[in-house]
Amino acid sequence: MSDILHRVGIKASPSDTYAALSTISGLAGWWTTETRGDSQRGGVIQFRFGARGGFDMKVLELEPGKRVLWQVVAGPEEWIGTKVSFDLRQEGPYTLVLFKHQGWKEPIEFMHHCSTKWAMFLMSLKSLLETKQGAPFPDDVNISGIGD
Amino acid sequence: MSDILHRVGIKASPSDTYAALSTISGLAGWWTTETRGDSQRGGVIQFRFGARGGFDMKVLELEPGKRVLWQVVAGPEEWIGTKVSFDLRQEGPYTLVLFKHQGWKEPIEFMHHCSTKWAMFLMSLKSLLETKQGAPFPDDVNISGIGD
Repeated sequence: MSDILHRVGIKASPSDTYAALSTISGLAGWWTTETRGDSQRGGVIQFRFGARGGFDMKVLELEPGKRVLWQVVAGPEEWIGTKVSFDLRQEGPYTLVLFKHQGWKEPIEFMHHCSTKWAMFLMSLKSLLETKQGAPFPDDVNISGIGD
Repeated sequence: MSDILHRVGIKASPSDTYAALSTISGLAGWWTTETRGDSQRGGVIQFRFGARGGFDMKVLELEPGKRVLWQVVAGPEEWIGTKVSFDLRQEGPYTLVLFKHQGWKEPIEFMHHCSTKWAMFLMSLKSLLETKQGAPFPDDVNISGIGD
């Protein structure tokens, strides 16, 4: 099993950061504008990226201001069953976001791509909260030149 | 053991990309301007980041246009003994760079930070090659607000 790990620090409160991770409008502001579904515990959120496809995430845990945990229930085969979590911690004027995408069976090349892509989306989350302007799909940063 | 994985695609030739990974001036253009030492096989390269400290990397493998492998011989305790590799592959007008920083003993919080930071530096490498302007230290992207 392999995990993708990241950490960013955001000049925003834990509650504002949590809102960007636990509401459809918040998520649409930094990951993909094509975000729909039910973001409450037990609900399923659909994230779509145009022709690239997308993911359905079941919301397993929600702790206001502290933690969000999803499990992938539909999407690329390598993602199914993996879990994505965001743990928040205040440090001075910053909220530190510890990110994990865990449960990859093999460290395949697609995992390398997703790791870099997650970093860019977490910077988009940071930008959304600090400047009110994220970079969600379809305005996401192209990291590879080949598709996305 | 845990690894940090990334992939970027760069609109540049494998040989130009390799030069940016295997020469002191190339490395100074995207990782840190404070890069010194011997970048030949068996040599040790010193990467410094002002008050943040830095790393010494021993060059273990060099395959022109294909691969660079370093081992950390000095720096933060968690980095000592870990290995950093860049594998290059041409795909149309792009060079895909598969990056690994492997051998972390534990997935500590510092590893989360380093993973995101590596993503930003790889985007700096991409930018250097595509626009002649990287973002090496001290002009690197601040990802956390707390130090770097």
